[in-house]
Amino acid sequence: MTTDLGPRTSDKPLAVVLASGGMDSCVTTAMANLDYRLAMLHVAYGQRTEACELRAFHALADFYQAEHRLVCRLDHLRQIGGSSLTDPDITVERANLERRDIPTSYVPFRNAHFLSIAVSWGEVLGARKIFIGAVAEDSSGYPDCRPEYYAAFNRVIAAGTKLETQLEIVTPVIQMRKSEIVRRGRELGAPFALTWSCYQGQDAACGVCDSCALRLRAFQEAGLEDPIPYTQRPRYARP
Amino acid sequence: MTTDLGPRTSDKPLAVVLASGGMDSCVTTAMANLDYRLAMLHVAYGQRTEACELRAFHALADFYQAEHRLVCRLDHLRQIGGSSLTDPDITVERANLERRDIPTSYVPFRNAHFLSIAVSWGEVLGARKIFIGAVAEDSSGYPDCRPEYYAAFNRVIAAGTKLETQLEIVTPVIQMRKSEIVRRGRELGAPFALTWSCYQGQDAACGVCDSCALRLRAFQEAGLEDPIPYTQRPRYARP
Repeated sequence: MTTDLGPRTSDKPLAVVLASGGMDSCVTTAMANLDYRLAMLHVAYGQRTEACELRAFHALADFYQAEHRLVCRLDHLRQIGGSSLTDPDITVERANLERRDIPTSYVPFRNAHFLSIAVSWGEVLGARKIFIGAVAEDSSGYPDCRPEYYAAFNRVIAAGTKLETQLEIVTPVIQMRKSEIVRRGRELGAPFALTWSCYQGQDAACGVCDSCALRLRAFQEAGLEDPIPYTQRPRYARP
Repeated sequence: MTTDLGPRTSDKPLAVVLASGGMDSCVTTAMANLDYRLAMLHVAYGQRTEACELRAFHALADFYQAEHRLVCRLDHLRQIGGSSLTDPDITVERANLERRDIPTSYVPFRNAHFLSIAVSWGEVLGARKIFIGAVAEDSSGYPDCRPEYYAAFNRVIAAGTKLETQLEIVTPVIQMRKSEIVRRGRELGAPFALTWSCYQGQDAACGVCDSCALRLRAFQEAGLEDPIPYTQRPRYARP
């Protein structure tokens, strides 16, 4: 699963980057790429748009010439269910950006599965950081996207790995508004056209799920055109 | 994956029990069974003795008439490697119970993968506890078997699950010597004959890997006969 793609600046330390293939992980990868060699990690977990996300992930890893690449499959999040992303009997809701409760797209404790894989892989590779594009502000209200969650997880890593392992999660976009993430990505030349964010579309993004709504509003606020195709492209005003 | 097996006392709360099928998880299940309805969880992760462990797990779940049962498969710990349990190119060492460093059987950050599944499942089922038979004293020296690791993980659960979720890891045997675990299991009628602990045997336990050595010494110190078959059955003295 390791692919070497041409020459790299080998004096940089290595970082594992968790990338779904969406806009937040795209910009996070662009930021990691400034100071680290990249070990890019994607997890397919039976979510509705698995194939679209995987295609976006590989396109990103190619674009950034990732030194290592790992794609993992988790079947148990689908076995466990409890989310509209993994259970076909629960409908993906239309976006409601004013809502404060946890949406049905919440996959119970999902990010811990991803981080555990990143830590195991990072420990074997000798990586120093794990980048994840979690967004707390201005996001979907998932409990596992908040800074205190990652601070707590870093204490688990310190307690549960070898003494010589020095591995830490960093969340460079967690406090940014989505429109700031778009602007930062633009500055860094992040390839938004390669990304996929929609929770339910197949050929084009639906434009109406939570994830599309947050993305479209972010581009609209940043005054930029989102380069990916949408079935509908509503305007989303901030309340 | 849910199996109902006859009548249960339905006023008890539900607990997820992580069970490998070894002696520690057998006694942990016996302890959980005193106060909880059981949701038994087993993870197959490409370890050498996967089939033996799975057989032992199902025998335990049958014995305790578990209300729910989930078997998950993780392929990525094998993809990632770094351990004699998951990488066929790394030899399983003969036991050295005096050693203080981390043995080659350490699977990087393994227990976090198991706990993450337990939390996701427990959150969907509405369970209150997660039981795991980790042993800190008198064990193999894995960093993810220490009390501070589980305390830190409980803070991740509190930060990363829904507000209404009340789920907590308990480790009832973590401070026991292995010989105490044997005695406690005997008191509770735990079915040791159904269990599997060996890291490398197929039909009978090898008797010489770390796991067999710890188990045999525990039974010898407890003054009891281990009821499972061994290829060799050395005596292990405490240093």
